Amino acid sequence: MINVGIVGYGNLGRGVRKALLRNSDMKLAAVFTRRPDDIKKKVLDIPIFNSNEQIMASINIPIDVMILCGGSKEDTPMQGPLFAQYFNTVDSFDTHADIPDYYNKMDNIAKNYRNVAVISAGWDPGIFSLERVLGDAFLPVNKRYTYWGPGVSQGHSDAARKISGVIDARQYTIPIESTVEQVRQGETPDFSKRQMHKRVVYIVSQDTKDQDRIRKEIIEMPNYYAEYDTEVIFISAEEMRQNHSSYPHGGFVLTSGLTDENNRQILEYKCQLNSNPEFTSSILVACARAAFRLKQNEQKGAFTMLDIPPALLSPHSGETLRSRFI
Amino acid sequence: MINVGIVGYGNLGRGVRKALLRNSDMKLAAVFTRRPDDIKKKVLDIPIFNSNEQIMASINIPIDVMILCGGSKEDTPMQGPLFAQYFNTVDSFDTHADIPDYYNKMDNIAKNYRNVAVISAGWDPGIFSLERVLGDAFLPVNKRYTYWGPGVSQGHSDAARKISGVIDARQYTIPIESTVEQVRQGETPDFSKRQMHKRVVYIVSQDTKDQDRIRKEIIEMPNYYAEYDTEVIFISAEEMRQNHSSYPHGGFVLTSGLTDENNRQILEYKCQLNSNPEFTSSILVACARAAFRLKQNEQKGAFTMLDIPPALLSPHSGETLRSRFI
Repeated sequence: MINVGIVGYGNLGRGVRKALLRNSDMKLAAVFTRRPDDIKKKVLDIPIFNSNEQIMASINIPIDVMILCGGSKEDTPMQGPLFAQYFNTVDSFDTHADIPDYYNKMDNIAKNYRNVAVISAGWDPGIFSLERVLGDAFLPVNKRYTYWGPGVSQGHSDAARKISGVIDARQYTIPIESTVEQVRQGETPDFSKRQMHKRVVYIVSQDTKDQDRIRKEIIEMPNYYAEYDTEVIFISAEEMRQNHSSYPHGGFVLTSGLTDENNRQILEYKCQLNSNPEFTSSILVACARAAFRLKQNEQKGAFTMLDIPPALLSPHSGETLRSRFI
Repeated sequence: MINVGIVGYGNLGRGVRKALLRNSDMKLAAVFTRRPDDIKKKVLDIPIFNSNEQIMASINIPIDVMILCGGSKEDTPMQGPLFAQYFNTVDSFDTHADIPDYYNKMDNIAKNYRNVAVISAGWDPGIFSLERVLGDAFLPVNKRYTYWGPGVSQGHSDAARKISGVIDARQYTIPIESTVEQVRQGETPDFSKRQMHKRVVYIVSQDTKDQDRIRKEIIEMPNYYAEYDTEVIFISAEEMRQNHSSYPHGGFVLTSGLTDENNRQILEYKCQLNSNPEFTSSILVACARAAFRLKQNEQKGAFTMLDIPPALLSPHSGETLRSRFI
């Protein structure tokens, strides 16, 4: 039985708890949170600790792997290096540009303390990274395309929510099917951002007379919206609650390559997710199993999903995998 | 530079030669074949050896990895255990039911001789095995579906070709799109073989008066055709040559799982191949790179693609993968 700790009990942490119930070789040992009193009301039968105190060295319950479920902006850059001193860790650090530095930092700490730290796990970064690397390894002469959606982007929703007069906002990133189809048919154009995705934003506004201004501010917002075709749709607070409270997402990675002047080979990995946080949580749990096994094999340091032998993610033995899955 | 030897110079061996030209960290060192005189006429500048002689211990050119490109029925079960005594090897042994035994045999030999033997690499077994295992690890409550095609099945073509009065035969396995679509829409039925694939066979017959009998014999052939809806189309030898001389293939692996009673997550991996043997060859070459690196890391024994950290397949360094692919 692998004993797992959860650090941070938001969407992702709750998803990890659910995922652990579906993995009979693992169990939840404790939750660490900045709001232990709140969480104690919701989570019975599981020890709850305050994650802000440096109590990791002194807790007396066995924890094989800590899954860090905080945000990539504020939580993980601080919690990763801290927890990796005491535990094997798994996180979903997803600020792509900072991953090389974060890897180096976590690799040093985990090596010093003889722990395993699986970083940047999830679907992107994570499975999509894996599929990009496999596509490129199998087809060295290639063009690769990553599409996201249809799904809610938290960052874009937050950006729209900051505009004055906006009560609530939900942004959907939508792949432009006609360009996906071009790639599937064997073409390999260079697409602009606008050609690959469009954005649809649902807004609850304070006052209908602000709507033209709000629409304009969204559509022209640099980095977030200006480079895309964006549709802004005003709805009621009630409609927002009813139709936009789940977190579907998905996307696909395409690798189109030539093994010969005439022989095109196209690889496509696609996921359709009803719940983005729950799927990410499920991946983190599989990575926790791998972290536990890597540690058992006397490995140490930082690992991305690219560094983990895939069999270590599976609950099944090598024999079972070879007889039933290969 | 990784020095690669090719054993067997059919479709797969020729594909490996092409793939090596697209991988600048690897080069072809020698070809081993049962017909060295024939091959010497086609392959200049590369040493050609007779693979039937036990000369592996005595050859004086450096070979880091041998890629075994013979058939799974007759060649690999004999060549794998022989070559694994002298070299790191990669093979595409694809008789699914015999893989567990073959793994054990190769693991023993490779461990005894301190070599690395990557077995059963390719797309199925191989990448598809990997995607089945990943889908199952990320979504433990799941149904999985593997579809093959549209593409030529050599085994089914051969079976039709053995019928008396048949000059030539080409069988295409075709996935039934309506059932694939059901899975993509979130349903998870149990399909019969007939519901998942149909078979289309192009036949060149000696005499038009035999056609009804040939059609009946094909459609009723147990194991190969009887469990499927099969269409038999008679064409001329000229048409066969013109329209059916390439080896397209492909297929997809679907994993449909629940992370919660209401949250369905669907993963799909798909490949569309203009040349089945060339794609398989490309994968074997990436696995040869991994075999070389595993050996450098002092590993030994048999490995399937499930046991290889994916980064080892890539020509790029860990730093490059983390900055450009993750």
